[in-house]
Amino acid sequence: MREKFLAKDYVNNDYKDIVFNRRSYRRFDPSQNISRDEIVEMLDEATITPSACNLQAWHFVVVDNEEARNKVKAVTMPFNYPQLETAPVTIFILGDIHSHKVYREVWTKVYEEGRITKEKLDDIFNSFLPMYEKADRDFLIQDATLDSSMLAMQLLLVARAHGYEANPWAGYNSKDLVATLNLDNERFVPIMAISIGKPGEEPTESTRYDVNSKINFLA
Amino acid sequence: MREKFLAKDYVNNDYKDIVFNRRSYRRFDPSQNISRDEIVEMLDEATITPSACNLQAWHFVVVDNEEARNKVKAVTMPFNYPQLETAPVTIFILGDIHSHKVYREVWTKVYEEGRITKEKLDDIFNSFLPMYEKADRDFLIQDATLDSSMLAMQLLLVARAHGYEANPWAGYNSKDLVATLNLDNERFVPIMAISIGKPGEEPTESTRYDVNSKINFLA
Repeated sequence: MREKFLAKDYVNNDYKDIVFNRRSYRRFDPSQNISRDEIVEMLDEATITPSACNLQAWHFVVVDNEEARNKVKAVTMPFNYPQLETAPVTIFILGDIHSHKVYREVWTKVYEEGRITKEKLDDIFNSFLPMYEKADRDFLIQDATLDSSMLAMQLLLVARAHGYEANPWAGYNSKDLVATLNLDNERFVPIMAISIGKPGEEPTESTRYDVNSKINFLA
Repeated sequence: MREKFLAKDYVNNDYKDIVFNRRSYRRFDPSQNISRDEIVEMLDEATITPSACNLQAWHFVVVDNEEARNKVKAVTMPFNYPQLETAPVTIFILGDIHSHKVYREVWTKVYEEGRITKEKLDDIFNSFLPMYEKADRDFLIQDATLDSSMLAMQLLLVARAHGYEANPWAGYNSKDLVATLNLDNERFVPIMAISIGKPGEEPTESTRYDVNSKINFLA
C-alpha cells in the first residue's frame, strides 16, 4: 500500500505547509463536493497510522448527504452545526473495541487458506492476543481511543495534502451517537468527527503556550 | 509561531515520504545523540496539534540520560526495553486534566496586565470553561487523551522531518508511571511513550486491512 501512496501526485506535498498552515475551519463551501472515491482514498491513506499491536482499532462512518446530516444533527450540539451543515463530508471516527476478535478471524482465515503454518498461527495468537481477550472494557477503550485519535491527526493532514481543509470536533451526544450511526454500541465508541471541504471563511487564529511550560526533563 | 516553523529548513520536507515511509523502529543507534535544544524544538513543532477548546491538555517528560532511563525501566514491560535502551531520547506524553485551570490562570494574567478588557475576559470564561470546571474526571481524561494522542501522531512525523525515526509504545505500568516521572497522579494521566533516534535496525513491515472493511456510508 505504501508504494501506491508514494507514487501518487498530491495537490500539496509540502510537509511544513501542510502541518504548520493547518487551521480549524468552521465553515466550508457547500458547493464543493468530494467524491466517495476520494473519501475512501483519503481514509486509505490515513490508515497508514500506527496502532497498538497493529490492531487498527478504528472505524469510519461517512456523512456526505442531506439525509445523513439530518440524522446526526439530531445528536450534535448546536455549536457544531456550522461545520456539519457546510462541509460536503463529515467523517465520524469510532474506536472498535472488538478489533482483537477481527484479528483472530483474519489470521485464522489466512491459516485455513494454507498461507501460513499452524506454528506461525500459534505464534501470532500467543504473543499479545490473550492480553486483549482477557482485557476489560476500559483497557480496550483506551487502546482504541489512542489508535483512533492518532488516525484523526493523520486524516487532518491527508485532507490538506488533497487540497482541503478540515475541522475536528467532538461536540455531540456520545451516548446516542453510535446508534444514530447504525453501529453496535457494545463494539464501537465515539472518538471524534472530522469535517472536510474547501474553506468557506477565514479561520480564527489560535495560539499555543510556551512549550517550555509543558516539558520536564527527568534526571 | 507558525512563521518561525515555516521559515525553517527541515532535513526532510517531503510530505508523502514523511507519512508513508514512516515505520516503527524498535532499535536505534545509541551513539547518535539528540540535543536538548532539538528535543524542545521538535516538541514545540508538535504542539501545533489542535486540541479541544485549545486547552492543549498535554505534557511531556523527556528521558535522555542513563539515570532517567533506569528509573522508567523499572516500570516498563521487558518487551519495550529495546527501544527504551537504544533510543537517545524517549518522550513520555501525559494528558493534563487540569489544563482548564491553567487556562483560567493564563487569561486572568492577560487581563491583569491590561491586555484585554473585563468584558473580553468574561466572554472567554463563560464560553466553555464552566463545562470543564463541572466535568467529572472521566470526561477530562477523555479530552486529554484525544489531544495528547493527536499530538503523538504529529510528533512521529516531526521526528521524520528532523531526519529521525520513532517508535510509539505504551507497554508500561500505567499505575506507577506518573509518580516515576515525578508528576502529580491527580493531574496527569499516561498516554504513550515515543522513542526517537537514528535507526539501529531494519524495521518490520506491517500491513493494513482493506480500508473498505472499515467504512460505512450513512444514508
